[in-house]
Amino acid sequence: MALIVQKFGGTSVGSAERIAAVAQRVATTRAAGHDVVVVVSAMSGETDRLLGLARAVSPRPEPRELDVLLATGEQVTIALLAMSLIGNGLPARSYTGAQVRILTDTVHGKARITGIDGERIRRDLAESRVVVVAGFQGVDESGDITTLGRGGSDTTAVALAAALGADECQIYTDVAGVYTTDPRIVPEARRLDRITCEEMLELASMGAKVLQIRSVEFARKYNVKLRVLSSFEDGPGTLITPEEDAMEQPLISGVAYNRDEAKLTVVGVPDRPGIAFSILGPIADANIEVDMIVQNTGLDGTTDFTFTVHRNEFDRAMEILRRTAADLGAREVTGDNRIVKISLVGVGMRSHAGIASRMFGALADETINIQMISTSEIKISIVVDEKYLELGVRALHSAFGLGQNDLAS
Amino acid sequence: MALIVQKFGGTSVGSAERIAAVAQRVATTRAAGHDVVVVVSAMSGETDRLLGLARAVSPRPEPRELDVLLATGEQVTIALLAMSLIGNGLPARSYTGAQVRILTDTVHGKARITGIDGERIRRDLAESRVVVVAGFQGVDESGDITTLGRGGSDTTAVALAAALGADECQIYTDVAGVYTTDPRIVPEARRLDRITCEEMLELASMGAKVLQIRSVEFARKYNVKLRVLSSFEDGPGTLITPEEDAMEQPLISGVAYNRDEAKLTVVGVPDRPGIAFSILGPIADANIEVDMIVQNTGLDGTTDFTFTVHRNEFDRAMEILRRTAADLGAREVTGDNRIVKISLVGVGMRSHAGIASRMFGALADETINIQMISTSEIKISIVVDEKYLELGVRALHSAFGLGQNDLAS
Repeated sequence: MALIVQKFGGTSVGSAERIAAVAQRVATTRAAGHDVVVVVSAMSGETDRLLGLARAVSPRPEPRELDVLLATGEQVTIALLAMSLIGNGLPARSYTGAQVRILTDTVHGKARITGIDGERIRRDLAESRVVVVAGFQGVDESGDITTLGRGGSDTTAVALAAALGADECQIYTDVAGVYTTDPRIVPEARRLDRITCEEMLELASMGAKVLQIRSVEFARKYNVKLRVLSSFEDGPGTLITPEEDAMEQPLISGVAYNRDEAKLTVVGVPDRPGIAFSILGPIADANIEVDMIVQNTGLDGTTDFTFTVHRNEFDRAMEILRRTAADLGAREVTGDNRIVKISLVGVGMRSHAGIASRMFGALADETINIQMISTSEIKISIVVDEKYLELGVRALHSAFGLGQNDLAS
Repeated sequence: MALIVQKFGGTSVGSAERIAAVAQRVATTRAAGHDVVVVVSAMSGETDRLLGLARAVSPRPEPRELDVLLATGEQVTIALLAMSLIGNGLPARSYTGAQVRILTDTVHGKARITGIDGERIRRDLAESRVVVVAGFQGVDESGDITTLGRGGSDTTAVALAAALGADECQIYTDVAGVYTTDPRIVPEARRLDRITCEEMLELASMGAKVLQIRSVEFARKYNVKLRVLSSFEDGPGTLITPEEDAMEQPLISGVAYNRDEAKLTVVGVPDRPGIAFSILGPIADANIEVDMIVQNTGLDGTTDFTFTVHRNEFDRAMEILRRTAADLGAREVTGDNRIVKISLVGVGMRSHAGIASRMFGALADETINIQMISTSEIKISIVVDEKYLELGVRALHSAFGLGQNDLAS
C-alpha cells in the first residue's frame, strides 16, 4: 500500500462531468489499495472570471484582497470533488490551504511555502478518507490568505508529497507526459518515459505548459518522485526522477522553445567591472525578469551587452535601458521583439563533445541565422528570428533523432 | 464618533457598479467620523450558481462540503469590496468568518453562532481601517467551515454589533424600511419609523423578506439597535428598537401575510392527554416545521386538530399524518394547500379590547370566510382561501387606518 498525491489541473476539473471522472480515477487508485491525497486547481476559466471581477472594481486590485478573491477558485473545486467522492461512497474531506496550514511567507500573489502541518491529513488517511486539498493557496503567520502564483497547485502537490513522505506525486494534465518537443510543431515528437529534474528545469519553456518549474525544484530538493500523466487517457506518463540515473540516459532529451522573448542590446558600453550590475540593476528593480544574458569579449575598452525579457515587458525594459545607457555613456541601444529562443536539452550532452557543432550545422543547413548563443551544462540555447521557430525546432528534432521512428543516436 | 455595523445583501453587491456604490456609502459614513464594520452577502445569483454546481456533481451534496462551497460566495464579495474601498483611498481589510473566528456549532447549513473573537477587528479599527467581514459563515471548533443558512448575513451583522458593542447595526436592503404591509398589495402602505423587536418577530412573514428573523431575536437578546434602510436611496429607514417604548406606540403596526402555507386536519381523534405530541412528533422527526396549531374544545370524547406547514412540505406531511391518524384511530385526515395566512400585528393590541372583533368585522364586510384563527399577545392570525389574500390584506390595512392618508386610529 502506497501513499499517492494526485494533482488535477483546471481543465481536468473544468465541469461537473470532468469532476466525476476525476472522482472515478481517485476511486480506482483507492481500489488498488493506496492512500490518496488529491490536490486540485480552480475550474478552468474560473481564475480569469475572478480576475475580471477584480479589475471591474479596481484597476490595480490590492494584492492581499486579490488573494482572498482568487483562493475561492480552488475552494469551489475541493468542495465539489469531495461531494462527488462521497456521493460515490468514498469517504472524503476537503481542506483549504489555510485549514491544513500550508504556511507561506506573506508575498501575496507569489508566496512561497515555508511549512505544512500534515497532522489533520494523516488523521483522515488513517481513518480511510480521501483528503482533497486546495492547490495554489496557503496562509501566512498572521492568518492571511496567500496564493502561490499561477500554476502553484503543482507546487502544493509536491510540497504535500514531501511533507507526507508520499511514494509518488502524480500530476494529471491534458497531455500524456513530457515530449521530446511540442507535438504541434513536430508531429513525430515522442513521449519520454523518464526525464531528470535537471532536464525538466532546462526544458522550462516547454515544461512550463506541463508543470510549474518551482514544483520541479521542490521535487528535486525533497527527493519526491514526480510523474506527469494525462487525466483523459490511460498511460504511464513521464516519470521525473530526482536523482540522475546514469544508465540508459539519452544524449538529448528534447527541444524546447519560447516564443515570448524579446532581446535588448546596449552597444559600446565601457568594459569595466560592475557594468552588468549597472545595466541589469534598474531592470530588476522594475521587477522585470531577465532570461538569457550574453556579453561578448570586449574590444577597444567597450563591449556589447544583450539580454532577453518577456515580450510583454519589452517596451518598459527599453525605456529603462535607454536611461541607463545614457548614464553609462553607451553608444547605442537596440532591441528586437520578434525573436524566439530554441533550446537543446539533455544531461547526456555533458560528456559528449560535438553536440553544439551538430546543432549549429543542422541550423546552417536550413540557412537559419543564429543571433545569440548561450549554454549551460545540459542545455544549448539560441535566439533566432521568430519566423524560423518551426523550421528550427523540426531541424533539431530530426538532427538528434528524437522522433518516434528515428533510431536513438 | 460611533461604531456602526453596516450590512449589505446580495442585491446591493450584485455587480461591480453596485459594489462601488456600497464603497461610496461606507466612505460617507467614514467621512462623518464613524468607525465602520461592513458585513456582506454573496453577490445576487452566486449562491444559486454554486448550488447548481453542487447538484450537478451530487444529488444530495454532503453538508460539510456544501458549506465549504457556499462560503466562497461571500469570500468573493469581501475581497471585491475591500479592493474597491482601498482603490478609493480608504484603508480596508477583509476577513472570512473563519478568520475573525465567528465560532459556531457544527450544524452544517444551519449553524448557530456561539462566539466571536473581536480582537483582530478592534485592532484594525484602531488603525483607522474599514473592516469587511463575510456574512453567513463561521467556523466550528475543529476548524471546519460552517454556514448559518440563507439570510444568515443579517445574523452575522447583529452578532458582530453585539460583540463589538456597536452603536447601531444598519441592514441595507432593496426596500426603504419596514412597511405597514406589502406595498405591492396595498399601494398606500406606509414606512414605519420604528417598530419593536417583538412586532418585527410577529411580522415574520413580511419581515422575512427584509430581515432574517433570527437576527431580530439576536438584536433583542443583546440589546442591539437595528435599522433597516435602502441601499439604493437615502432615507432614515425603520429603527427596530430592542426595548419596548411605551410612548407613541401605535395600536397596530402592520398587516402581514404568508402565501406559502398549507393546512392539515385530523378529524375525530380521541381527546386525551398526549394527543398533540402523538400527532406532531412524527412531523417534527421528519424535520417539517409547523407554523400555526389550532385545536378546538372536543365533543363526544374526540377532537379535531389542525396545523399548517410550508406548502412544499404538504405532500410529505400528509403522508406522515395519514399513518399517524390510522395508528390513533382518527376518523379522517383532510388537507388544503390553497390557503394563506393573514396576521394583524401590534404591541398596542395588548391593552385594547375590540381589535379582534373589528378585524373579523372588516373581513365579514368583504364576505371572506375565516377558516382558522390563532392569537398571541400582539398578533391575531387567520387562515383564508388563497383567493382572498389581496382583498383581506387591503380590508385590514384600511380598517385599522394604516395608510399614508389615513388618520391613525
